[in-house]
Amino acid sequence: MSDGEVRRVALTVEFDGTAFKGWQWQPTGERTVQGALQDAFAALPGRHGAVHAAGRTDAGVHALAMVAHCDTTSPIPDEKLRLALNAHLPRDVAALAVGTVGPDFEAQFSCRYRRYLYRMRIVRGRPRGLALDRSRVLMIHRDLDVDAMLRAAPRFEGRHDFSSLATQETRSRVRTVHLCELRPELGELRLHVAADGFLRGMVRAIAGTLIRVGMRSETPDVVDDLLAARDRRRAGPASPPHALYFAEAGYEPWSPVRSEVRLAERLDLPR
Amino acid sequence: MSDGEVRRVALTVEFDGTAFKGWQWQPTGERTVQGALQDAFAALPGRHGAVHAAGRTDAGVHALAMVAHCDTTSPIPDEKLRLALNAHLPRDVAALAVGTVGPDFEAQFSCRYRRYLYRMRIVRGRPRGLALDRSRVLMIHRDLDVDAMLRAAPRFEGRHDFSSLATQETRSRVRTVHLCELRPELGELRLHVAADGFLRGMVRAIAGTLIRVGMRSETPDVVDDLLAARDRRRAGPASPPHALYFAEAGYEPWSPVRSEVRLAERLDLPR
Repeated sequence: MSDGEVRRVALTVEFDGTAFKGWQWQPTGERTVQGALQDAFAALPGRHGAVHAAGRTDAGVHALAMVAHCDTTSPIPDEKLRLALNAHLPRDVAALAVGTVGPDFEAQFSCRYRRYLYRMRIVRGRPRGLALDRSRVLMIHRDLDVDAMLRAAPRFEGRHDFSSLATQETRSRVRTVHLCELRPELGELRLHVAADGFLRGMVRAIAGTLIRVGMRSETPDVVDDLLAARDRRRAGPASPPHALYFAEAGYEPWSPVRSEVRLAERLDLPR
Repeated sequence: MSDGEVRRVALTVEFDGTAFKGWQWQPTGERTVQGALQDAFAALPGRHGAVHAAGRTDAGVHALAMVAHCDTTSPIPDEKLRLALNAHLPRDVAALAVGTVGPDFEAQFSCRYRRYLYRMRIVRGRPRGLALDRSRVLMIHRDLDVDAMLRAAPRFEGRHDFSSLATQETRSRVRTVHLCELRPELGELRLHVAADGFLRGMVRAIAGTLIRVGMRSETPDVVDDLLAARDRRRAGPASPPHALYFAEAGYEPWSPVRSEVRLAERLDLPR
């Protein structure tokens, strides 16, 4: 059970980002999700390549279902490989699924869309979940104009230059946002965003902008103004990372129905 | 704003038990919830008595809504006192409500019933929530006979001698269990237990016994056998504390409807 043929496996990975310095392996030895996964592979017989993800999450951001791929000579069948990886992973990372894919599958480049979730809770007047969900949800201790926020969110949808919402320079800043919706769900306000790709900091800037609308510091028109400005100094304050979840990587064209069904399967998990 | 009249305040407290050695203050300086609350009071002007709870939870056990009382000379009005306490409490404890009560109110002795929640999730075939909920829910990696468990649970209801389910000797081991129900809720199996009082380790022994029934190591009849045996060596293995929540302290006679409504207000909080 040492070396077999090289095969490529796709992994679906859940992680609690609280104690990680983000996805990407750091040469300084910081604790990262990629590092944890690569260490788990290294503990198994065979040779293994790097673990590549559909997206790189920042420090503190969680994942319900990140997709990654890895080349391995391990002959262990997929489900046994999943259990073996989990036996070597720390408790805040878990492989939810492992499947053999073709050599052309690339977690990042084959990905057609990504979906994120941002969780907020207005706790003014109904303080609860404060202690148990403190590293999972953004607690908002004041009243918000939720109606204005609901109206503002879909204005981010469509094909736009998102320069105003990025925290880093990149060459192309045009993205197509398939879905940007704020939903009152199970006592929370949850922002659902899906796009063909995201600029760094983009979801947290969208959440931060919507909160400013909710605080009446801006009107919903600010969204159009921001998109037109194409100026990253205009970005709203990024909201904190601990309420952000990478929710889905899609490898088929965007389909609202399919994406909702997949997400519902994960979100039936309550606190 | 130093010394006023002594008044008694009742507190509703939420806590994440993960990093606490239980409720009760320890002379050895271990981190406890009672200690954290007393330290928060001590940071406020005035004199303050000890903080007494409706029940003492073990290390690792959480609370959605523990009730406690404390005598204080602080003249700060109730809601401001709540905010002041939260400003001094660590992030894993939160005061959800503070109210002035009469001098006869005793969080423990005035309490008419307590309610606990025990959260289980069968993750075989649908592994998810493994990383994010690892310190919140008992993950069960095999199939269980849920139907047998559902049938066994209500057999604990009624007035019984619970000697077989206690981990400590106490004088009176007769308790009245108002509710003992296993419910499939939001992708989990949740044990709801309410009683006029609980022996130490009782809920975890009930959960452990139901899991043994689910594993077909016992039939539902084991419940009657256990209760009849009145022998604490017969107690099923206690299931782990991290999935147990103190859910409610009731100061009126048991009412299933009122208790359900209160709990629903808290449990709309999803993960």
